[in-house]
Amino acid sequence: MAFEGAHFRRRCTAQETKTSTVHINDRSPQQEEDIMTAMEIGKEVAALCKQGKNQDAIDRFYAPNVVSIEACAMPGMERTQKGIQAIKDKNQWWVDNHEIHGGSVDGPYPHDDRFILHFKYDVTPKQTGQRITLDETGLYTVQNGKVVKEEFFYSM
Amino acid sequence: MAFEGAHFRRRCTAQETKTSTVHINDRSPQQEEDIMTAMEIGKEVAALCKQGKNQDAIDRFYAPNVVSIEACAMPGMERTQKGIQAIKDKNQWWVDNHEIHGGSVDGPYPHDDRFILHFKYDVTPKQTGQRITLDETGLYTVQNGKVVKEEFFYSM
Repeated sequence: MAFEGAHFRRRCTAQETKTSTVHINDRSPQQEEDIMTAMEIGKEVAALCKQGKNQDAIDRFYAPNVVSIEACAMPGMERTQKGIQAIKDKNQWWVDNHEIHGGSVDGPYPHDDRFILHFKYDVTPKQTGQRITLDETGLYTVQNGKVVKEEFFYSM
Repeated sequence: MAFEGAHFRRRCTAQETKTSTVHINDRSPQQEEDIMTAMEIGKEVAALCKQGKNQDAIDRFYAPNVVSIEACAMPGMERTQKGIQAIKDKNQWWVDNHEIHGGSVDGPYPHDDRFILHFKYDVTPKQTGQRITLDETGLYTVQNGKVVKEEFFYSM
């Protein structure tokens, strides 16, 4: 494990910004466009999740063929969901089945083309009526400015 | 993004425990031994880190050929360190160069053979004398009961 002073990190951030500029249209190389980095997408996704706008985050920042993998299967659902619509449906299922009292989102924590978010939610699942705290992290992989994979890490 | 009630997760935990039992010696298959899961190792590593015993965690739970990858390079050091001794040296360098006032370790958050820890440290780097909060996550990959990769996620 190693940590470093914040003043050492400025160089790293500058490098990330520099390498994020790529040509996205081979026919018009002079029209350069910035593809969002993992860090930039992470900031937007975290901000939307904090406002409860998770579906907006999916619409705006997820690739059509995104894959979502849970730490374990939910009842009546596979661990792995493929495609943006399946992931929106899973998210909607969760919203429909939980009363959300509050929560927090820490991050994003970036590393190359990935970022981590840390979620804590104070919820009551409608099925049990028992108020609980959900504490989990999500690992997101970005390609070409879109989230192509989300993996959730949690335990009992 | 999706979450689920804690009561749904018991089944997942039981499955993880079951699949963690494997033969580690082909010549004595009747002598089954439990290889620690990512969750079990994560709990031990988190507990040791909370006590400031990071070197003990490396000694006990890291594979000899473990790889450590920072989000960006530290001054005078490559982003990637290979081998347990190099990682112990990096850790010692950090301890020697920071005054640690306090901190917290959240987790482990497991997902198959990986787990995430979330660190917040209140430190003063000796080089600057300026007290700061370091906030980062670590993604750990486990094989055969040992940590074989640690990746740190953070930004400015």
